[in-house]
Order: sequence, then structure tokens, then C-alpha cells
Amino acid sequence: MVDSLGIVLATLRAADVEAVLEAATAAMLSQPNGVPRQAIGDGVDLVVVVGGDGSILGVARDVAHTGVPVLGVNRGSLGFLADIAPEQIDDKVRGVLAGDYTVEDRFLLEACVRRDNRDVEAGVALNEIVVHAGSMSRMADFRLLVDGEFVYDQRSDGLIVSTPTGSTAYALSAGGPIMHPQLDAVVIVPMFPHTLTSRPLVVRGDAQIGVRIGGASTPKVSCDSQVDLDLEPGDEVRVVKHPHALRLLYPLGHNFYESCRSKLDWATRLGGR
Amino acid sequence: MVDSLGIVLATLRAADVEAVLEAATAAMLSQPNGVPRQAIGDGVDLVVVVGGDGSILGVARDVAHTGVPVLGVNRGSLGFLADIAPEQIDDKVRGVLAGDYTVEDRFLLEACVRRDNRDVEAGVALNEIVVHAGSMSRMADFRLLVDGEFVYDQRSDGLIVSTPTGSTAYALSAGGPIMHPQLDAVVIVPMFPHTLTSRPLVVRGDAQIGVRIGGASTPKVSCDSQVDLDLEPGDEVRVVKHPHALRLLYPLGHNFYESCRSKLDWATRLGGR
Amino acid sequence: MVDSLGIVLATLRAADVEAVLEAATAAMLSQPNGVPRQAIGDGVDLVVVVGGDGSILGVARDVAHTGVPVLGVNRGSLGFLADIAPEQIDDKVRGVLAGDYTVEDRFLLEACVRRDNRDVEAGVALNEIVVHAGSMSRMADFRLLVDGEFVYDQRSDGLIVSTPTGSTAYALSAGGPIMHPQLDAVVIVPMFPHTLTSRPLVVRGDAQIGVRIGGASTPKVSCDSQVDLDLEPGDEVRVVKHPHALRLLYPLGHNFYESCRSKLDWATRLGGR
Amino acid sequence: MVDSLGIVLATLRAADVEAVLEAATAAMLSQPNGVPRQAIGDGVDLVVVVGGDGSILGVARDVAHTGVPVLGVNRGSLGFLADIAPEQIDDKVRGVLAGDYTVEDRFLLEACVRRDNRDVEAGVALNEIVVHAGSMSRMADFRLLVDGEFVYDQRSDGLIVSTPTGSTAYALSAGGPIMHPQLDAVVIVPMFPHTLTSRPLVVRGDAQIGVRIGGASTPKVSCDSQVDLDLEPGDEVRVVKHPHALRLLYPLGHNFYESCRSKLDWATRLGGR
Repeated sequence: MVDSLGIVLATLRAADVEAVLEAATAAMLSQPNGVPRQAIGDGVDLVVVVGGDGSILGVARDVAHTGVPVLGVNRGSLGFLADIAPEQIDDKVRGVLAGDYTVEDRFLLEACVRRDNRDVEAGVALNEIVVHAGSMSRMADFRLLVDGEFVYDQRSDGLIVSTPTGSTAYALSAGGPIMHPQLDAVVIVPMFPHTLTSRPLVVRGDAQIGVRIGGASTPKVSCDSQVDLDLEPGDEVRVVKHPHALRLLYPLGHNFYESCRSKLDWATRLGGR
Repeated sequence: MVDSLGIVLATLRAADVEAVLEAATAAMLSQPNGVPRQAIGDGVDLVVVVGGDGSILGVARDVAHTGVPVLGVNRGSLGFLADIAPEQIDDKVRGVLAGDYTVEDRFLLEACVRRDNRDVEAGVALNEIVVHAGSMSRMADFRLLVDGEFVYDQRSDGLIVSTPTGSTAYALSAGGPIMHPQLDAVVIVPMFPHTLTSRPLVVRGDAQIGVRIGGASTPKVSCDSQVDLDLEPGDEVRVVKHPHALRLLYPLGHNFYESCRSKLDWATRLGGR
Repeated sequence: MVDSLGIVLATLRAADVEAVLEAATAAMLSQPNGVPRQAIGDGVDLVVVVGGDGSILGVARDVAHTGVPVLGVNRGSLGFLADIAPEQIDDKVRGVLAGDYTVEDRFLLEACVRRDNRDVEAGVALNEIVVHAGSMSRMADFRLLVDGEFVYDQRSDGLIVSTPTGSTAYALSAGGPIMHPQLDAVVIVPMFPHTLTSRPLVVRGDAQIGVRIGGASTPKVSCDSQVDLDLEPGDEVRVVKHPHALRLLYPLGHNFYESCRSKLDWATRLGGR
Repeated sequence: MVDSLGIVLATLRAADVEAVLEAATAAMLSQPNGVPRQAIGDGVDLVVVVGGDGSILGVARDVAHTGVPVLGVNRGSLGFLADIAPEQIDDKVRGVLAGDYTVEDRFLLEACVRRDNRDVEAGVALNEIVVHAGSMSRMADFRLLVDGEFVYDQRSDGLIVSTPTGSTAYALSAGGPIMHPQLDAVVIVPMFPHTLTSRPLVVRGDAQIGVRIGGASTPKVSCDSQVDLDLEPGDEVRVVKHPHALRLLYPLGHNFYESCRSKLDWATRLGGR
């Protein structure tokens, strides 16, 4: 990672672009003057994230509101979000600086915990909001509402509410469909539902989703598997589109379906049955 | 069915509404002057279909281009499209005539068979277009393209391309998600894919979907399981949104999620694990 | 529940059968001389469980080693294990006392936690053993071995190892198959696997199953969702058939497939597509 | 294929083993005296099949009753049944002739079509028996019976009855579990069931399975996707274990789970979520 960082910094320097380091990254490189994580989008034109898709999830929460675009550089295998491989850094980053990129706005979800008619906590996610029973293999009762309409009562381990961006991540493991990144939709995927008729449900991206939870001892909301909110019995979790989208830059030539083929092993093998 | 038809006709007469009968229906009732099926939408203000969801699928193909709204009366159990039960006919049909209804535009799909750079055949579907190998348990090779981009090569029994309306029908049996009827999206569901990584894919409703088929002896396109088109090796099937939507009338009080709960047995049982 | 208990006790008394009460149950009925839970199988000919399938799971762990048969009386909806409804108690229990019953031996699984070449903890389950990452939506790395052979490395939320008895419970929610109760087999079901090619795997009932877990902060083993064992990184969980089976009594006329139809809503609806 | 055949024949000759050619293979090599396909197991000690898993399916039907073991040589990618790669032929076949092999008996299924209380047709399969509606995306009504007990009525495209050997083939595409080859069990997998509660069902290998079909115009039974039997409305298809198993030889070192990892892409990727 230090190597990749070094190449990124050298490429920026060669292009006469001034780089500002995030605090933890600066510390890792023994450099002074790192800016706090929450401020990495302030006063800059581009945020470069060296890591993987998981790193971009974290940065998205801090940067989305600024509108500053984010470019992902991958350390290992290519990701859906961080699509520049280590050996391509110099070439691709220079390309992006020269204007050879495409922009994709990816919307985020915001979860509000509503208790006694007040919003008591909130979280933001680029991939998915998960409302769950708190402990594994412990079911709870969930009531789902969409745009104020009652959808179902369900006994399960939880519900995943995923963006198109998240549809190739946790929601996919739970049986959800893949959604094209430009689709304005949200998918709700039940986790180990007790009733076999429960299926993933795709609704419009601006739908207001409400989840009420009962019968669990330690219910929780999880945002991108990175931030957890504690729930109390009777709470309602409201999930809506976040007002600011993440502005994602890709080097020219990026293609969603190619990422699917590469990451999901599509089309590798057409042997005899 | 004759009973239900009789009640519908009596209700229309009582409201001083003139009824025109479709030819086969007229024959069944021993009445003269039935109009041909293809013309049932001509010069009328409303088409009433007495039957089930399957009957509406058939009518949709003949009526959609006229813009005339369709009201479904069910003979047996309630459907997703025909939502008036036999015992409600008088009450609900009168309500609709009095203006107590909601309108839902449901888009249709159009499949074109392209051979030697010419469109040689076409079909229309409200639920789904299925491109398949022709015989069951005989696989073929399918290439999927979306908006001209290569998606994957797949060995399977076929591909289902479904509208939101069709997402509670055949596509659901094949593992596809439920899509809210107002979502502008199409889902592509592989049928018994040889590669385990193939999953349902949701794309925008105005996407141009192309399917090329190889290695099958008698490939076919099936529209709503009612109309079949024969394919030849090397053909490409193009699926796009049909220019005209079906205008569906529902009595007031219709609710999609209630139909799901009723038809899919949601929320019936919250017993101990 | 007190009512059902009363009817059971009255039926036993009427048949001149002496009843011994478990301690908590005795306390609930304000009766003296309850026997400790762990001893309920000692010196009796039959254990009657009033509750649901979940209650029988708990009793199974305490009674299986004694070989004493267990009869389940249900409080609410019928279960797979407790198949006597409240209104049938008098009739069915008298029938069982008169010899009108069938016996089904259901094998249990035993999980041993192996650390530094020693067995440090153990648990028993009638339905399933779950090895999981500890927190929901937090993945871990699992290595599966069957009979000493390496099966796969998997990134997921956990693995469910289920008996045929458990195949209609949690394993079913996770996509496992239904297994006939008399099948001598165990199914291993991945929980939200990161790799889409992971599928439920059915092996012989006497297979030795090993699960190693890495990369989780608080891994755990859960037995029938009732008993939890804490794991440390590097631990191996070994799951084998328990030496003693649960001897389950059913009133005459019990039928597994009928339970499936009733509990899983099979065959309720054959409407038009 | 001719090349692989040549190496096999040379290896046999070098080991002083007399080879007899099947008729079509002899013709392909311009050799005289090929024996009819149905007689390839007569008077020989070993049948060597050069092809893929599909070729072994075909040979199994002709050889199983003789008890003569079968060795599979693969032309392309490795299979579950034909596990000798082209470049290994000389080495592995010599090993087998020298006694370095393991034997696996794989049971077959036999389907009988029963009409007017008589068996009118029969077929044999190593992988699976499929009872289906005849045309794709045309549903029919199926009644399933196991050991004479009614299981369910189901509206679907068909039912797959698969051996453990077939559990990694068509049944897997339809959502069935993987079953270890030595398991004495059969799995019944519904094909696009109209009722969402239908799941794969695993029963004992000696179960008597009955399928009745109604409401289809051209129902069929398909054996290993190679042999089709025509059904008439009202027919019952009975599926039982075939009296003779296929005796399969594997070179030493063959491992089922390794075949799964290789063929199903298990454990290829443990990236960050």
C-alpha cells in the first residue's frame, strides 16, 4: 500500500498537482500536516483513495456532501469501485488528470432511527443499510413499510436495503439481483426469512422505506458493515436516498459488465453439462 | 364465467352504458354482432376483461396501441391484474363507471427477431419475453448484450426478460426479484444456468437488450407463454420497451403490496423457528 | 400453556399414570417436588413436552442420552416435532398411552471446539450447529473439511451444519434442501457466501465435519440457537453425530409430508400463472 | 479425439492388452470389426470411454448391467466422471492397468411410464430423470408421491429427480444441493415452481418416487437429456433405483471435492466484500 501511495504521489508531483494527505495516511508515511479524515474533501479538486472497495465505502460517507469527485486505486484485485490496478497507477492517474475519465454519480442511503417521534441517530451508506436482530441465528419480527404502505410482517434475521452500487456486495450474497449502477432503484432483501415466500423487492430509488423491529434483544442498524447504530424495541428505522451522491471517477474504458465478468467469474466456462 | 359476464353486462346496462362484445364472447352468449378480437379497442371508452391475469395478457397485445383503458374482472381467485372478484362485480364496476378508479400505465416489451440484418418477426408481451432452447433440459449458448455492451456468454436453458408486471409471474419462479409496478426497469433472469455465478440482472426500462443464441436445434421466443416465434441459428432477438403502454384501471383501494400478501402468502405465519 | 399442562396431567391421572414435573414447570403450577431439568429423563418411561418445536430442541439435549422417548404437545400451531394440537391432547395422549404411536429416532449433532490439540468445549443440537463470525454482516474466513478432506475456503457470515430434523428450520431459510427425517445425512449450508458458487452440500450422517475460522473478532458456535460457545481465532470446530439419538413418539397418523404441506404452505394454490 | 484415442490404444498395446472398438469409433478410425454399442461391455474387463461426462452418461446405460468397470478419459476440461486429462493418458491408463485405481459404484435411476396399470415404456439415467411439460414456459400440474405417500401438488415446468452423481449437473442449475457421490439419496428439484414454498427434497436412495402429470399437451420424460419418453395425460412416471450400478474407475488421487473446486470455481477468490 505504501508502494502504491508512493506511485500515486509521484504521479501527482510529476503533473504539478499539489497533494494533501489524510492524517492516518500521512502518519503511515511519516509525513506532517495530514488533514483530519472528515475534512479530506475540503478545498480539494479530487480525492484519490488507495485501497479497495471497502476504503471507498468509508470515504464516501465523509466526501459525498462536498461534491468532490473520488478516484479509487486498488491495492490487490480489481474492485467495482476502485478500478485502477497497482501496475496501471501511473498511466491511468495521468490520464484522469488529463481529462480522460468518466463520471458516475452513485446515490447513498441514509438511515434514521426514530424513537418517541424523534430522530435519535442516523447513518449513511453507499452499499447497504442492514437492520438486523443483533445476534446471528436469532430471529426477530420485522415490519416493512414502503412509502407509508404496509408491505409485510416477517420473521427473519434481518433486512438488507441496498443501492445499485451495493447490489454486487452483501445483497448479492443474500440472493438479491444485480442492478445496473445507473438504475434509480433500491432493493430490499430478507435475511434468512422464516417464511419461504419472502423474496427480494425492488422499489424506486426515492421510495421511503420504514422498518420496525420487535422481539429482538439487541437489534442494530449496520451501515456498509462499518458503522453500527443500536436500536431499542419499538424503534422505527427510516431509509431514504441521501441528499448528496458520491461522484465517482473512472479512467476511460471502465465498463460495469466487464467488472461483473471479472469479479463474479461470469462466462469463464461453457463446458458440457 | 357466463355468470360473471352476465353481471357485468347487467351492471353496464343499468348504468346506460352501451356494451360491445368480442366475437368469441358473443358466440358463447349466443349473441350476434361480436367484434373481432383485434378490434376490441376500436371506438370504445373502456375494455372490460372477464377472466384472469392470463386473459389480460392476451388482451394487452390487442388494446395497448389504442390507449383505451382495461378493467379486469376475475372469475376465481384474485389476480395481480384482474382485481375485481365475482361477488364484487356490481359494486366495483359501478364505482369505476362513476369515476372511482386509479390508472396504472404498465409498459410492454417488444421482441424483434433479426436475421440477415432484417427484422423478420416480432412479438409483444406484458409479462415477459423468453428466449429459450426450444426443448426442455436441452441447453444452448446465449450471448447477452445490453445497450450494445457485451454482458456475458451463458450456457443455460434460456433467458427471461421481464417487466415489473411480469416480475410476480414466471420470472419470480426462476428466482427473479419482485419489482414494484411503477419501477421503470426490466429484469433478465437466466433459466437453469450452467454457471453458478449467473444472477438476475435489473436494468433500466429503456435499455436495449440483445440475445444471440447458438447451439440449439429449435430455439424459440415466447411472449407471455402465449405467442411463440421460431428462431434460426445465428438470429439475434432484440427486446425493447413497446411504444404503447397498457392503461390498466383498478377500483379504488387497490394496493400492490396487498395483492402480494394475498397472492404470494406473505406474512401468513410468524411461528417459532 | 397452563391449560394444556392441566389437560395433559388430567389425562395421565385418568390413565393411572404417575406424573413427575420438571422444576420450572412445577413452580409455574405452584406444585412441590419438581425435578431438575437435567434429570427429567431419569427413572421415567416417557417425557411429555408441552410447548413447541423449540421446547423439544431444549429437552432433546437433556434426554437423548437416556433413551427415554419424548412426546410433544403443541400450544399453538402444529410443529414438525410437537404434533399434538391443544384440542387433541386428551384423545391423542390416551392413544399414545394405549400403544397407538410410532417411534422415530432422530440423530443429534455434537460440536467440539478444539484448541491447542485439546477439546475445550462441546455442545449438542437436534436441529443445527452454526459456526459464525459473531456479529451480523461481518464476514469471516471459513475452511471446511469433511472426513479430513479439504472441501473449500470460503468467505461468508458462517456455516450451518444441519440434521434432517433441522432441514425444515434455519437451514431451509438459508437455501438448504428439505431432507426426509429418516435420511442418514447432514447438510452444510453457507450463510451469505462471498463466492456465488457456494451451494448446500449433503454428506453422509456419519461424516466428520471440521470448520476452521479466521479473520473474525468474536467467532461463535450456536447450537439450536439456544446454546452459544465462544471461539478463539485458530480454533477448529468438529461436528459429528451424537452417540445418542432422540427417541420421538408420534400419535398414529403422523405424516412428515403432511407436516410440510401444513407448515410450509405446500400445495395451497394452483392458480393461473 | 482421434489423438486421444490413439494414445489410449497405444498405451493398451504397450501393456499387451487387447482392445475392442465400439462400432462408431472403429468407423471413425477406419478400423474393421467394431462391436455394436449395446454390446461394448460383453466379454471385456474394462470399458474405456474417451470423451467427456456426457459420453459416460450414454455408456452407463449400456454397460451398467454387465458390471464391467468404466474408465473415463477426457478430451478437454476435466469432468466429474471422466477425470483423466489428455496429457495424462499414458501415465494414468498405465497406472490403472497396473492396479492403481479406486472403484466407485454409482447408482442409476430407472423411470417407468405406467398407463392403464401397465408399464409401457422405461428409461435409465445416471444423472437425472426429468418429468416435464414438454414445451418451455408452459406449466403443468404435477403430483408427487414418495413411497406411496402424497407429497404435494405443484404447478411448475417439471420435476428433476437426480442421483448424487447428477447433483452437480442439471439439478444444481435448478437450485438443488450438491450431494456426495457415496450418499445413498435422491433429490427431487422443482423446475420454476408456481408456488414459492417448493424446495428441493432429499429422500433415501431406495425411495419409490411417483410423478403424475396433468394439464400439459405434450408431457415428456427425459433421461440424462439424451433419451426422451412421450407421456400421455393421466400417465404416472415411477422412478426407482436401477438394479445395477455403474462401476466407475478413477486413477489414484481422484478426489470429489477437488473436482468441485476445479469445476465449480470454489475457493477462487477471497477478496474484501
